Amino acid sequence: MSGVTSANMMLFEVENRTYGNRAYCQCRDDNKFRFGAYGQDTVDRLKWMHSVWATTISNALKDMGGLDMRELMAVGLEMGDEIHNRHFATSARFTQILASHIAKVANKEEAIEVLQQLQQDRFATLNPIMAAAKSISDAFAKIPYCSLVSVMARNGRLFGVKVSGTGDRWFTAPAPVPVGMLLPGFTQDDVSPDMGDSTITETIGFGGMCLVTAPGFSSQVGGKVQMFADFTADMYKITIGESPHFKLPVLDNRGVPTGIDIFRVTETKITPVCDTGMANKIAGHGRVGTGITRPPLSIFEEAQKALLETSKQ
Amino acid sequence: MSGVTSANMMLFEVENRTYGNRAYCQCRDDNKFRFGAYGQDTVDRLKWMHSVWATTISNALKDMGGLDMRELMAVGLEMGDEIHNRHFATSARFTQILASHIAKVANKEEAIEVLQQLQQDRFATLNPIMAAAKSISDAFAKIPYCSLVSVMARNGRLFGVKVSGTGDRWFTAPAPVPVGMLLPGFTQDDVSPDMGDSTITETIGFGGMCLVTAPGFSSQVGGKVQMFADFTADMYKITIGESPHFKLPVLDNRGVPTGIDIFRVTETKITPVCDTGMANKIAGHGRVGTGITRPPLSIFEEAQKALLETSKQ
Repeated sequence: MSGVTSANMMLFEVENRTYGNRAYCQCRDDNKFRFGAYGQDTVDRLKWMHSVWATTISNALKDMGGLDMRELMAVGLEMGDEIHNRHFATSARFTQILASHIAKVANKEEAIEVLQQLQQDRFATLNPIMAAAKSISDAFAKIPYCSLVSVMARNGRLFGVKVSGTGDRWFTAPAPVPVGMLLPGFTQDDVSPDMGDSTITETIGFGGMCLVTAPGFSSQVGGKVQMFADFTADMYKITIGESPHFKLPVLDNRGVPTGIDIFRVTETKITPVCDTGMANKIAGHGRVGTGITRPPLSIFEEAQKALLETSKQ
Repeated sequence: MSGVTSANMMLFEVENRTYGNRAYCQCRDDNKFRFGAYGQDTVDRLKWMHSVWATTISNALKDMGGLDMRELMAVGLEMGDEIHNRHFATSARFTQILASHIAKVANKEEAIEVLQQLQQDRFATLNPIMAAAKSISDAFAKIPYCSLVSVMARNGRLFGVKVSGTGDRWFTAPAPVPVGMLLPGFTQDDVSPDMGDSTITETIGFGGMCLVTAPGFSSQVGGKVQMFADFTADMYKITIGESPHFKLPVLDNRGVPTGIDIFRVTETKITPVCDTGMANKIAGHGRVGTGITRPPLSIFEEAQKALLETSKQ
């Protein structure tokens, strides 16, 4: 992982060194911008993020010769994060790894500012891990006849999936409204249909797919640990393998369920489990809670039909 | 928590703010000195630890007005550490909390050195947490007729316990040789009878008492996750309560088993589970592995007899 400059904002860049492809993600600070806020305070913060934070992180990452994302993700899973909506331990580890390099590349004042931000940030690793997940899924995104899900994403109206063997074609249906634990003052009526592209993490086995590893996250979703264990047990029924790199210590180091196969989904009628930040349905009003959502079965059935068509061509 | 100076070496100081008592622990770097090594490299390293590391950490802790150890320990348990022999996540969190203060109080060169040390140190929080455990157990150490274990410790020859109602009196028996996972090149014949005072952590419910929270530690001990779950389930049978502060998310936030009652130990014949660093039986040759040890039942029986005597006086 290293920092690169886009036209107006620094991005995280993750390189898949096995396949040579790269993926990118913007820098993030809090949830305001992500969830649609765009006031002056958000703009000011983004400017600081670009000029101070991202520049310092980028120089620190260069100083250390890049960061091994696979190792970071593996230890994150071992420390009770499912590395989609819980990054508490992974962010701490990220800061622990970067801190001496930040002290080295930045002046004193900027080092203090950036380290203060990282001290507070429970989601510091969300964005680079999204890019890492994308760099993994892109590597198997367009294999003829391959029935693995290569992308899952939501935009507040639709839930869409792509399947490797059907390439760039989207299969969509109305996005469900997630259910979970609401922040104080909100009701289920405030929740937007599911949104965001962070379910790229579920696509390769993190987040809702491996909730069993994150018991500390269950109270944030409003569930019991057994529910998390049951979810992950189900996810092994719709995936073709178990990761040799990303292990779940609570299952005696079984690998995370990896490779969602649309044939297994349609046969079992078990859809992937996605955990998700619930957004206010009024744009720009931020996050209202954390919950669980599952894509509609119909999009996997449609994708299967389309995939079978390709084999007749 | 804050740093104080002893005659020759800085110590961690932990204050129990409920009861006003304080406890202390030396600073540590690696396992060499702890496990008996005392060559020139150890001495040189200790000098650096004192002059640079401890001074910087002390100033950083003062700059932040002390560190809330209870919160640190609680999140450590949530991140898959049992905070006796696994401190991987807790040390990362400790570094994340201190980093900006280190950048503030130290000059650039020393900040880099200390942050580099913390980046590598998987046991940065072991010593302050031992002092914190002592500050908790000291608060109930001398209550007349109280049957709770207030200290457990080993010295390479004896395993000893103190009981609240019998005050400073030790009840001892030969220390068992721990069994677990050996580092490459060692056999069980190399293992010393159990040693060290770090079982103060078990005394208040950490370490072997709450192994269920640390599945990532099981492979280091050579056990399965179910063994860890069984251990903790047993520990609830010999303790009088569950901590309201230190929760185990994997048990849906049940508190750690707290307050080892010698009557329950002798009745059930279940002794406390202690996880432990296994030392080489040749002094100065360091650590040879990580394992499990349990104090002999006889010392609890003896303590019970002595406690009952006090009620006749």
